[in-house]
Amino acid sequence: MDSATCLAIARQRHPPVHALTVLYGQRHDREVRAARRLARHFGVLEHTLLRLPLRGLLRSSLTDPSRRLPQGGRSGRRIPSTYVPARNTLLLALALGYAESHGLRHLYLGANAIDYSGYPDCRPEFLRAFERLAMRATRAGTERGVRFRVEAPLLRLSKAQIVRWGDRLGVPWALTWSCYAGGARPCGMCDSCRLRARGFRIARRIDPTVG
Amino acid sequence: MDSATCLAIARQRHPPVHALTVLYGQRHDREVRAARRLARHFGVLEHTLLRLPLRGLLRSSLTDPSRRLPQGGRSGRRIPSTYVPARNTLLLALALGYAESHGLRHLYLGANAIDYSGYPDCRPEFLRAFERLAMRATRAGTERGVRFRVEAPLLRLSKAQIVRWGDRLGVPWALTWSCYAGGARPCGMCDSCRLRARGFRIARRIDPTVG
Repeated sequence: MDSATCLAIARQRHPPVHALTVLYGQRHDREVRAARRLARHFGVLEHTLLRLPLRGLLRSSLTDPSRRLPQGGRSGRRIPSTYVPARNTLLLALALGYAESHGLRHLYLGANAIDYSGYPDCRPEFLRAFERLAMRATRAGTERGVRFRVEAPLLRLSKAQIVRWGDRLGVPWALTWSCYAGGARPCGMCDSCRLRARGFRIARRIDPTVG
Repeated sequence: MDSATCLAIARQRHPPVHALTVLYGQRHDREVRAARRLARHFGVLEHTLLRLPLRGLLRSSLTDPSRRLPQGGRSGRRIPSTYVPARNTLLLALALGYAESHGLRHLYLGANAIDYSGYPDCRPEFLRAFERLAMRATRAGTERGVRFRVEAPLLRLSKAQIVRWGDRLGVPWALTWSCYAGGARPCGMCDSCRLRARGFRIARRIDPTVG
């Protein structure tokens, strides 16, 4: 739901949109199907799917089928086991290379508040540090002074606010997928399913993927 | 020759070494064979080979077989066409994820002076910016204050100095590969071959891969 809403916002603010879907060793590719349909729905100019063989390289419960996924809500104290080392650094590096190759400047990322309470690479300080790096990392930045921007419009929003904003922009929730597990239907038990359910409940909307 | 010497230095300073070889859409995988042999020679603990399907994503004469490779030396003025957008950001992001997953802290990179005159992501400012990013990007950095270090021991050296240092550390030059083209033998014409030849000549050493 975050990526889908983020895409809808990018399409409104900086069209045309190029979309990048990265598989970095997640347990399933249910999200890929969702991304393909959403890209088509929102008419993205180019949708690139990258399958990176990183399962053994980046250790996380999100990429290791032998580890249990956390359930029962986040404590807000510790970084959850679903943290993937340097994940957003890697995603932004790919987006930066793509953007420079295609003459683009705005990198949209669906990072959001609920996550940044846990994941370090969803925090505003991280995103600003990446913008500073991007200026020095690229030919565009060093030769022409291009300032790449990391746009994270959902950063400080609750899930309920995301549901409301997505609704206004016509996000087709039925095409989205949030569950960390890879079943035919969302498991309803993992952190991601719980946060999503709570968002819809507080926003007083029906989630078409449930029930 | 840079990567091989860098590996020999890493092995001396921070053993045991984990090595990461990344194919990001180069024209040929001659370098991969060289990396495998060098890893074995220096007894690295774990050698990971990543093939990333990035040819269409990162635009460069190094990854596009339809473009001519530059010949005749670098002007020092402009960034050469072999620049790969955000390449070192991507390599360091992968190394950072790997390092955090394996409890490591020192990221060795064979970046060197001859390159940083041309490539922005070989410059010291870039490497320091990445270190600052790494602290904010990771659980290790934010929870435990781990300071990841980008070690680029060849940064300010000439190719001749690298040849001399490599020689002292026992780098088996016959196993190394520098040529941008993918022939059975080095082409002798590309920038990389010319810089290498000049280094060996000034250091008064014989390059066993030539002649």
